[in-house]
Amino acid sequence: MSEKHLPLSKKKIEKIINDFPTPFHLYDEKAILENARALKDAYAWNDGYKEFFAVKATPNPYLIKLLHREGFGVDCSSLAELIIAEKTGITGEEIMFSSNDTPANEFIKARELNATINLDDITHIAYLEKHAGLPGLICCRYNPGPLKKGNFIIGHPEEAKYGFTREQLFAGYKICKEKGIKRFGIHTMVASNELNANYFVETAEILFNVVAEISQKLNIRFEFVNLSGGVGIPYHPDQKRIDLAAMSRGVKAKYDEIIVANGLGPIKIYTECGRYITGPYGYLVSRVLHIKDTYKKFAGLDACMANLMRPALYGAYHHITVVGKENKPSNFVYDVTGSLCENNDKFAIDRALPELTPGDIVVIHDTGAHGYAMGFNYNGKLRSAELLLRENGDVVQIRRAETVDDYLATLDFAGLDSFR
Amino acid sequence: MSEKHLPLSKKKIEKIINDFPTPFHLYDEKAILENARALKDAYAWNDGYKEFFAVKATPNPYLIKLLHREGFGVDCSSLAELIIAEKTGITGEEIMFSSNDTPANEFIKARELNATINLDDITHIAYLEKHAGLPGLICCRYNPGPLKKGNFIIGHPEEAKYGFTREQLFAGYKICKEKGIKRFGIHTMVASNELNANYFVETAEILFNVVAEISQKLNIRFEFVNLSGGVGIPYHPDQKRIDLAAMSRGVKAKYDEIIVANGLGPIKIYTECGRYITGPYGYLVSRVLHIKDTYKKFAGLDACMANLMRPALYGAYHHITVVGKENKPSNFVYDVTGSLCENNDKFAIDRALPELTPGDIVVIHDTGAHGYAMGFNYNGKLRSAELLLRENGDVVQIRRAETVDDYLATLDFAGLDSFR
Repeated sequence: MSEKHLPLSKKKIEKIINDFPTPFHLYDEKAILENARALKDAYAWNDGYKEFFAVKATPNPYLIKLLHREGFGVDCSSLAELIIAEKTGITGEEIMFSSNDTPANEFIKARELNATINLDDITHIAYLEKHAGLPGLICCRYNPGPLKKGNFIIGHPEEAKYGFTREQLFAGYKICKEKGIKRFGIHTMVASNELNANYFVETAEILFNVVAEISQKLNIRFEFVNLSGGVGIPYHPDQKRIDLAAMSRGVKAKYDEIIVANGLGPIKIYTECGRYITGPYGYLVSRVLHIKDTYKKFAGLDACMANLMRPALYGAYHHITVVGKENKPSNFVYDVTGSLCENNDKFAIDRALPELTPGDIVVIHDTGAHGYAMGFNYNGKLRSAELLLRENGDVVQIRRAETVDDYLATLDFAGLDSFR
Repeated sequence: MSEKHLPLSKKKIEKIINDFPTPFHLYDEKAILENARALKDAYAWNDGYKEFFAVKATPNPYLIKLLHREGFGVDCSSLAELIIAEKTGITGEEIMFSSNDTPANEFIKARELNATINLDDITHIAYLEKHAGLPGLICCRYNPGPLKKGNFIIGHPEEAKYGFTREQLFAGYKICKEKGIKRFGIHTMVASNELNANYFVETAEILFNVVAEISQKLNIRFEFVNLSGGVGIPYHPDQKRIDLAAMSRGVKAKYDEIIVANGLGPIKIYTECGRYITGPYGYLVSRVLHIKDTYKKFAGLDACMANLMRPALYGAYHHITVVGKENKPSNFVYDVTGSLCENNDKFAIDRALPELTPGDIVVIHDTGAHGYAMGFNYNGKLRSAELLLRENGDVVQIRRAETVDDYLATLDFAGLDSFR
């Protein structure tokens, strides 16, 4: 039996499907909140520790509201995400605005909400000042370049488009100080979906060291160090969860060694986890529409790339289970596909599964982050609803499914009549 | 000077940008119509030849209406695309419904519109009959498997999820005949973005041979052979356009040799080109927002993956030119990026270009197909408007840009207030 399974009985999920047609994303409130609390607890040693949930991972205001109640802020990267925060009642320094190649209107909105702005580039200091005025608190994003090895998704940091070089960091804070800014933070993100706790300890060490150097050289005080996200989840059953305690312990050791020992504390630790918070506790629930047997066996679902892009975009593994067949042997091999006219619309290739028949309820795991959020409308396919399994067992819809009318909303069919 | 250029003067494009904020997709009506006519002319030897424009490539009813006036039908692959056809006044056998892993409601809509249904799998005969009833005309999609070598995007046909095997094809038409269907067509698509004309001649030969065998064995008459799409365009300036005349001449030779010689004619040739029709005549027009100089040089545009996914999804090359700098030497090297918090949000990596400065108008070429259509809303980024450069030089908006309200349309913020 697979260790990944839907936290619901077959009877319960069949009842849900009766009320809400598949496909849909289902989030598990209890597991998400427990996970959120565990992250907070891990960093409890740090006064002022705060997690800013990466809205891009799962831009649903209902989930964000739940996390906000746990004390989380939000990490926004665009105008639309800032507006989601605002509409969810989150403003001010509870918003970290971490963007890149930023348009003026996004800086203006971030300033209007008094969000903490994390600058991606040294030229953005002047750009921000010109378009929205400089705030009293500023953060700069550090790209350590070849100093730090990247990982699969993010590549080598020196190839990445993000952040300031070390020299630019010193120059940037100097400019900000001269412009009268008095409050400072620092940020980096050099990995995505990383499961090795040491990776984050090393990253913290790099940031703490640069904080120590800049503090001394420029005589400024850092209020926070934003370790950002990149904390991975075990998509494959053979992978292990990151050791949160080891990560936090390692970060604390470096904090004591560099920040405390140099009299630079207290400095607040911030994180911007997205995937880690909701990823494992979201499920794409789908049904088998067709079984096809040609040169290979294909199980065609009623979900497609519109609901989950990661396998097609990154070749990412997502575990798949079949409701009611968890104990059956996986002695059939399928390509599990969607219905797009796009050959990489496959959730899995050559996956060993129990024998499938049309109507089977198929659960694609670990879709709680970068699942719904990355869906597109190619082929006119529509994005699905999002449901929340409440702690009391109720299921509520927290986003309706798209309709064809939504898909056509930007088109003027009345104008088409007179178009010659 | 690059051979790829926007068909507009600098003054004219600046005026357009004044009326319509960047980024936007701009389509060239004159070039598209000339291209459409050239395709028709190439197959003029075949009585009843018809091109069914692949809606998925550019699902804009204004473009579809123009092409319909040239005698084109449409190739639809989903409910939404069928509805676009219907709203554009296209019904009946002017619609080819080519889908896979098809849900029942799509078959029902296709039948309602009297579209020609192209079945992807032998099991779909019974499924169609059960859910929507069988039509008088049916088409089956052939997957020749290892008989045919695939190409980069579509892979090996035997790995692809599409179509019937040879044995299933014989069995499928037999079932259809026994069920009383009297009119038949056949379809295949084994390549995507292929520039070698011979590839399509070989494909036609395979189809014509199987038509001859099935006609004889089952004593049925085929009305059409749908060679489908897959005809490529030269994205890179070093690539050559496909030789349309050679392709058509080669197909005709095989037609004469197999169809005519065996007394099976006349059979109508159908195609389902999308990319070939509009691809080269669409331009993503964007402006440089930021120039960034860290470990590399980055030119940040106001467009992003929301407007064009192909470079990130396939590593695809799209040529880039800079308005007014067409004659300047390309002696700078940039990564040309969008603003997503996603490191593969790059339109080009290490691209030699003239020196760029913020405000420069950057044109990304060959975005007339699979450009707008594949955009997503990740990071809360919005899809751009589509404009049409009319034959008389006017520019009209044929799709408005998305707004934040569009992006939030599936969320119930009123319900959020009472959500605890």
